[in-house]
Amino acid sequence: MSLTSASPLEAAQSAKSASHILATLSADARNDALTAIHSGLTAARDEILAANARDLELARKAAADGQLSQSLVSRLDLTKPGKWEDMLKGILDVRGLEDPVGRVTLRTQLDEGLNLERVTCPIGVLLIIFEARPEVIANIAALAIKSGNAAILKGGKESTESFVAISRVISSALENTQVPNGAVQLVTTRDVIPQLLALDKYVDLVIPRGGNELVRYIKDNTKIPVLGHADGLCSIYLDSSADKALAEKVIVDSKTNYVAACNALETLLVQESALSTHLPGVATALAAKNVELRCDAASKAALANTPGLNIVDATEEDFNTEFLSLTLAIKVISGLSEAITHINSHGSHHTDVILTSNKEDAETFMNAIDSAGVYHNASTRFADGMRYGFGTEVGISTNKIHSRGPVGLEGLMIYKYKIRGGGQGAGDYGEGKRQYLHQKLPWE
Amino acid sequence: MSLTSASPLEAAQSAKSASHILATLSADARNDALTAIHSGLTAARDEILAANARDLELARKAAADGQLSQSLVSRLDLTKPGKWEDMLKGILDVRGLEDPVGRVTLRTQLDEGLNLERVTCPIGVLLIIFEARPEVIANIAALAIKSGNAAILKGGKESTESFVAISRVISSALENTQVPNGAVQLVTTRDVIPQLLALDKYVDLVIPRGGNELVRYIKDNTKIPVLGHADGLCSIYLDSSADKALAEKVIVDSKTNYVAACNALETLLVQESALSTHLPGVATALAAKNVELRCDAASKAALANTPGLNIVDATEEDFNTEFLSLTLAIKVISGLSEAITHINSHGSHHTDVILTSNKEDAETFMNAIDSAGVYHNASTRFADGMRYGFGTEVGISTNKIHSRGPVGLEGLMIYKYKIRGGGQGAGDYGEGKRQYLHQKLPWE
Repeated sequence: MSLTSASPLEAAQSAKSASHILATLSADARNDALTAIHSGLTAARDEILAANARDLELARKAAADGQLSQSLVSRLDLTKPGKWEDMLKGILDVRGLEDPVGRVTLRTQLDEGLNLERVTCPIGVLLIIFEARPEVIANIAALAIKSGNAAILKGGKESTESFVAISRVISSALENTQVPNGAVQLVTTRDVIPQLLALDKYVDLVIPRGGNELVRYIKDNTKIPVLGHADGLCSIYLDSSADKALAEKVIVDSKTNYVAACNALETLLVQESALSTHLPGVATALAAKNVELRCDAASKAALANTPGLNIVDATEEDFNTEFLSLTLAIKVISGLSEAITHINSHGSHHTDVILTSNKEDAETFMNAIDSAGVYHNASTRFADGMRYGFGTEVGISTNKIHSRGPVGLEGLMIYKYKIRGGGQGAGDYGEGKRQYLHQKLPWE
Repeated sequence: MSLTSASPLEAAQSAKSASHILATLSADARNDALTAIHSGLTAARDEILAANARDLELARKAAADGQLSQSLVSRLDLTKPGKWEDMLKGILDVRGLEDPVGRVTLRTQLDEGLNLERVTCPIGVLLIIFEARPEVIANIAALAIKSGNAAILKGGKESTESFVAISRVISSALENTQVPNGAVQLVTTRDVIPQLLALDKYVDLVIPRGGNELVRYIKDNTKIPVLGHADGLCSIYLDSSADKALAEKVIVDSKTNYVAACNALETLLVQESALSTHLPGVATALAAKNVELRCDAASKAALANTPGLNIVDATEEDFNTEFLSLTLAIKVISGLSEAITHINSHGSHHTDVILTSNKEDAETFMNAIDSAGVYHNASTRFADGMRYGFGTEVGISTNKIHSRGPVGLEGLMIYKYKIRGGGQGAGDYGEGKRQYLHQKLPWE
């Protein structure tokens, strides 16, 4: 890893060169590098935590002056119980994942002695822009090396000291491995993001890890593909055939399990015929968790006799809002078809749920909703790489191409086609000449 | 299909709505629509060819005035032998392809009664911008419907009459099918491309089918992902261990089989030690096909005693040029490592070839070259969907995400995650609570 005082352009060029070497390294060589990083970090614990303490001191002062949020200070802290150990374990977890490079995904005999293969390979150079969490740098370095990609890292300024300390350790750990020096670059100079986003000749994919504003800014300011999501406006459609206790539980979990998450519930659509049967119970369960209900006229009327609720009149804007707080917009609709139309036009194509006991309706909903995750009778909060069983997660994508939903190592791969021949030309084939066999061969 | 006098925005909105219906149609419903289109076009042959004749008449006049190239006139002509029949057969070929929608590609039991599935689904709305060939409209309509995607088509103005006639037939054919009217939109009004490229809220993927300039313009003027390639600067590295006859044949085929293609050879890198043994024979074979050689000093010197060549001194720019003509740039390099560096920095990441009898070097080359196609001892011209056995081709991509190389139906698909549960919440899992099973299940 380079501790670049290098310019963004130099960092990107050197990452590109390194990516071409990384692409040829064996799985063992890449895994050995992860082992070296793990050992290096283990040995340098005190030095890194001392650097982190300096970041924390500044951050606490800024927080006391009201310039920084308390939650950011908390995210900075590497001494929080389990955080350091999780960071180290994460590197070994990534090392233990199946090698994503060089997997054959198609094999066709074009002709005798002319064979086509499709093989997974790294994308090239990743630009990862993230906010405060200093442990992310180790995690991302591990994912990048495992997947054979070079990475340029740009972290938030609040964790600069921690980043520099961690990357110094990683850098020296990599020196005795086959992974080239330019493979992981840390850019610490300020205000370089616009320059980095312009380097589409060298950077193949941008992965922002941070809030909506950061992601939206990046998407609006680069021609490089961006993997991620700006919004997480998740909805649940509550059908009148749903089991009542099930509905209450899933809605409460989706809304309150972690309100600041992108996969938290923001809009509840209630079928008209479920208004008197289901909504009062759901609203009471939400009120017990201190959820404010932004109700349209019909749902407000249906709740008029339910005590203990915190109801506010909904505006149109509430149905386009990702609250990220204990607030839920509630709208009454006629049924499935209106639910689909509403979610496809108001949602953010992240994760949406139908609660129903009608399996056919559930399948229709899951096929028609244009989102990365479509669930039947389960919480929106399951939209997560760890919960899906993917191991470490790079992020959650609402893109319509490449990777969608929670993205693990697979999302950092592309493929190439290899042909092995014996001197064939395209001119050898055609009418009156040789014919293609196009014989599919097994590949696993 | 709508014959839109509609605005681009209206077309895009209506395509988006249609895409949500298309995504729920069965394979039979989509195939029936292709059958209907095939029958409709078969019955309307005379009417369409009459419209095409009107386009041709105008084009021939423009060509006579020097305002249009003769090759464009030729591409317009639907009466060229086999063209009409191929267009119709193409629709049936697409209908016969395996259904790409709803294929399960991952299945994991998260817990008892909580199951995760990854399922292929359409991307949504495609914007296809193409130049003169009127038969493409039928081809693209078939691919879009088969893959469950809605499509907005914008064709070149020279084929307007043909487009309108074909789309009128397709439109009326679709009326008796389940495919909604907005699923295929033809936009014929002029100067709408910039407006269409701004509709990233509705359009999910742009596919330009045309020359470099069109593709480059589109890539530079939209935030929507673009599937395709602007350049095809393909290279061959000739190693001194290569079989001489094989090298001559592959190089001649790559350069001369079809010079205007994106997969034609543009740069030949010759290993220094192959200068006297291989280059004269290769140059003589190329001269026999009237290829002009743009030689660097070392290759020019090596060819000084070879008669009958057309040699021009190469400039630096020649090694960054896609000639698309009977011209080849030739450079002498020390060996494999320099070849890799040259191709990765000067090439366009389309298709590159090593000619060698050393298998280890071939594998190194194929892993290290950052291109969609990497071949050993075979012509660059094999980079083609038909030759790969993919059936109809949407285009060739040099993207590093989603689809790379020749793209068939698969490139028009993305996936979504479905979870089927029984009321589980994320809060049910964790320390002291339920644990995820993450049991991989078979899916084929």
